[in-house]
Amino acid sequence: MGCCHYPAVKEGCDSAFTVDTSRITFGPGCLLEVGDRARALGMKRVALFSDARVAGLPHFAKVRQSLLAAGLDVVVFTDVHVEPTDQSFLEAARFATEARPDGYVSLGGGSVIDTCKAANLYATHPADFLAYVNAPVGEGRAVPGPLKPHIACPTTSGTGSEVTGITIFDLLSLSAKTGIASPALRPTEALIDPDCTATLPGEVVAASGLDVLSHALESYTARPFVHRPAPARPSLRPMSQGANPWSDLGCREALRLMGLYLERGVKDARDTEAREQLMWAATLAGIAFGNAGVHAPHGMAYAVAGRVRDFRPSGYPQDEPLVPHGLAVIVNAPAVFRYTAAAHPERHLEAAGLLGADVRGASSGDAGEVLAGRIVQLMRAVGVPNGLEGVGYTGEDVDALTEGAFPQQRLLQNAPREMTRPVLTELFRQALRYW
Amino acid sequence: MGCCHYPAVKEGCDSAFTVDTSRITFGPGCLLEVGDRARALGMKRVALFSDARVAGLPHFAKVRQSLLAAGLDVVVFTDVHVEPTDQSFLEAARFATEARPDGYVSLGGGSVIDTCKAANLYATHPADFLAYVNAPVGEGRAVPGPLKPHIACPTTSGTGSEVTGITIFDLLSLSAKTGIASPALRPTEALIDPDCTATLPGEVVAASGLDVLSHALESYTARPFVHRPAPARPSLRPMSQGANPWSDLGCREALRLMGLYLERGVKDARDTEAREQLMWAATLAGIAFGNAGVHAPHGMAYAVAGRVRDFRPSGYPQDEPLVPHGLAVIVNAPAVFRYTAAAHPERHLEAAGLLGADVRGASSGDAGEVLAGRIVQLMRAVGVPNGLEGVGYTGEDVDALTEGAFPQQRLLQNAPREMTRPVLTELFRQALRYW
Repeated sequence: MGCCHYPAVKEGCDSAFTVDTSRITFGPGCLLEVGDRARALGMKRVALFSDARVAGLPHFAKVRQSLLAAGLDVVVFTDVHVEPTDQSFLEAARFATEARPDGYVSLGGGSVIDTCKAANLYATHPADFLAYVNAPVGEGRAVPGPLKPHIACPTTSGTGSEVTGITIFDLLSLSAKTGIASPALRPTEALIDPDCTATLPGEVVAASGLDVLSHALESYTARPFVHRPAPARPSLRPMSQGANPWSDLGCREALRLMGLYLERGVKDARDTEAREQLMWAATLAGIAFGNAGVHAPHGMAYAVAGRVRDFRPSGYPQDEPLVPHGLAVIVNAPAVFRYTAAAHPERHLEAAGLLGADVRGASSGDAGEVLAGRIVQLMRAVGVPNGLEGVGYTGEDVDALTEGAFPQQRLLQNAPREMTRPVLTELFRQALRYW
Repeated sequence: MGCCHYPAVKEGCDSAFTVDTSRITFGPGCLLEVGDRARALGMKRVALFSDARVAGLPHFAKVRQSLLAAGLDVVVFTDVHVEPTDQSFLEAARFATEARPDGYVSLGGGSVIDTCKAANLYATHPADFLAYVNAPVGEGRAVPGPLKPHIACPTTSGTGSEVTGITIFDLLSLSAKTGIASPALRPTEALIDPDCTATLPGEVVAASGLDVLSHALESYTARPFVHRPAPARPSLRPMSQGANPWSDLGCREALRLMGLYLERGVKDARDTEAREQLMWAATLAGIAFGNAGVHAPHGMAYAVAGRVRDFRPSGYPQDEPLVPHGLAVIVNAPAVFRYTAAAHPERHLEAAGLLGADVRGASSGDAGEVLAGRIVQLMRAVGVPNGLEGVGYTGEDVDALTEGAFPQQRLLQNAPREMTRPVLTELFRQALRYW
């Protein structure tokens, strides 16, 4: 037996897990704490990161005012690129290098928080851009020391970036998503104010909520930590370490909340209770996946988002085609979990039950179908597109999508079953249309 | 409505909660990671803290060897006083000041980890001893900055000190327990190796397990965070902030595990599964109470432990009389929860169910009785003394115990119902004998 009801440790695999999170403040109105908290962290000159849209919202004015009221110098960067690239990261890093802040505050969705992490990293520990980028695309060099303090304030209930040590971007030269992963990137504090989500369009709540749902499902069904090869040195144990007793706790609660509140939060912006619970579920799932890792639905999503043709979803800016991250993930999910269920049927069935599926009388053999069915039911309930066809792909794209997803080995190897090229092709084929 | 199913925020009270924990590594054998982790934290000269008993065990040799193998200088302090005092803290601080380590490793129970926190504090930020001690006994001054890195390695499944920012001691001049509470005291990392508990006597597993059980019950039933007056500044929000959605998660899982494994882990040292689960429950309950706070059973325990006459429990050193911390806590618990149930009957009933009580058909009005009954059942099952009489007190001591407990206002105010002197007296009276 491995510990805490996990299977026995496989030969050469790990027998322990390591977990960590940012200091988290959660509650309506807590954005106003940012000035006092920045000062308590010793900041004097703060770089405030945001994007053009968020910079026009009242939250941004509140945060800036709170920092100024605490007697801090504030320099502002609002040129964050939504779906950031190596170019936009470098631009942000140049800003930070010149502005010389002693601390960072980010206010926005995942793109903003991720850009702020990168700017902090390259301004604090300058290096060639590819030095810290995940191998094999980059060198995967370890971050040599702590970064400047960073308070992350998410404005969507989705990415969980505020509690993870991961930053994701498009490497333009390869047309591929990749990232940097290091505990040093984890924001020092997260200020999570559910009031920020009160004005989000339902479509954004749906896409980000389904991303959260998949964070929780992927972390819960990931290859168990006792089946991952032990690291060369304990301090190199990856954050994507597989399912473990700690991430399980957050996953279960996030799934339960998603089953209860996703539909309500999408359909009625005035349903404060539902939107608060979705924000809390996003936090819990963020902590979980930051300490367990996601797997195939996210690995496949990089290809789905990267090869977009002319999909322009309502609720999002219409100036360029975009498959929002949550949609790019969820279109793969039912197909993936139908396949992975055979590895751990009880977990898949339990997850379905937590999401609100009727699992009475279901057997192990039904687990994949029951879970996939419940995901599809939720997708339809919140009005998201019907699989890959719904976001503009056809059967002819399946090979190209496979080629785009296969290099995401860091994620694919965290799946509980092997994700070969033929498996991915078959999963993409099954993901074309669900109803 | 306050957030996440909590009651509405009371006038003048807090609407947010702040949570934090140490980086945690958990798993059999993980003690061997200490050298690599100390080096990764930048340590070169390590002060290794322990007590005379633990210093003779194989774990101690393992830890020392791992530090040396990582190329670190190691200075050893094994004079930790079990149930530390201001005197013993000062002695440890003098050692640290002279040894000038750049990092700390503690290996032992709560006394060792707490002593190491204090030594790190006073060696890093020298001050009069009472400066940082909780008001009103001390000045309650804020710790002015971060401490040196500290890796805490617990050898009992009890105190949770490895993940909290609290250190507790006896102030000899007042014959009273008090402490220092600051997020700065929280160890940087916790290495939690359940193999350390394999050789513990059943009596020690019972007492420390009942301490864990009470950590979880007290945090779960504590005054909700939305009923605690808002702090003057957000960064002064106390760690004893009351029950909140984060601490609730850990409490529920810890209670469930205690219900399943306490009796097994006490009765059979070879039941590795049970002892691992008890260690994991201790970790979860430690995270929870470090972010919610305990209340009356712990506040009353300080008086019960402090006024010991000649109780010398088996499984513990026999050279001086001692009411082990877990016993000093649990003898109060049934009486307290019978009284507090009226404040939040559903929570008390849910806790009883998680601990394994049969709650079918129980109404709100039964909550206190059902929970108290289940605690008593567990106490009997693991063979601990029958209430205050079982540890050497009589009805004539009730007034003195009340006087000893009443100054513990930091804890008593975290209870969900008012803890006046007459209430405490009545609770001590009811705690004299349970069966």
